[in-house]
Amino acid sequence: MTPLARSVADFVAAWNTADEARRRALLEASFAADGTYVDPAVRLVGRAALEAHCARLAAERPGAVIVATSAVDEHGGGGCFTWRVVGPDGTTLREGLDVVATDATGRLARVVGFFGDYRSPLTQR
Amino acid sequence: MTPLARSVADFVAAWNTADEARRRALLEASFAADGTYVDPAVRLVGRAALEAHCARLAAERPGAVIVATSAVDEHGGGGCFTWRVVGPDGTTLREGLDVVATDATGRLARVVGFFGDYRSPLTQR
Repeated sequence: MTPLARSVADFVAAWNTADEARRRALLEASFAADGTYVDPAVRLVGRAALEAHCARLAAERPGAVIVATSAVDEHGGGGCFTWRVVGPDGTTLREGLDVVATDATGRLARVVGFFGDYRSPLTQR
Repeated sequence: MTPLARSVADFVAAWNTADEARRRALLEASFAADGTYVDPAVRLVGRAALEAHCARLAAERPGAVIVATSAVDEHGGGGCFTWRVVGPDGTTLREGLDVVATDATGRLARVVGFFGDYRSPLTQR
């Protein structure tokens, strides 16, 4: 697993835990302190803002999990992967594509999310 | 058409012309002087480097054109679109996804390309 793929895995896991300490540790490992996260719904600057956002979502949609539906297509410190949010009853609540870039430590410095039915060559359906 | 979509259209047109003056004008209109372009094959910094790359490709694959296969899915100064390179005989030589971000002038400051069978919700097949 590459450093970028490792960061993506920890980043996704951070969104999926309801445990505050675990969420913090996962984001410390995977997301730059001054990183940016942007999707059609939010624009966040800094790990603390992202952590609060993840906590909010975890509270709003209990039992929902983000599942990466592709490996990370990666080159030159950047990559992208597709995902879906699956509700506790198995329905897809949302799907999309995340595009990421790492800093020198391998942490995600920039994440841009797009919503909708995205597919990469690595998407498994 | 948004400033970003306008820049994408001019950016694609720049790759598709064999006319040096027109290529330069299109890139001046659409790509930041210090912009970066990265794909699995090249990593370019600055408009001049991109211009030289486009000229090289135009010479290497005469008659081939890049066709955007989706509108730009855009939010917050960033966006992405799918494309294919069509040879003079109509065959697809390559396809992929470009992810872009603009500067304050609406020019593309960062372009990251991924190769392969990408689809966005806006892709038309």
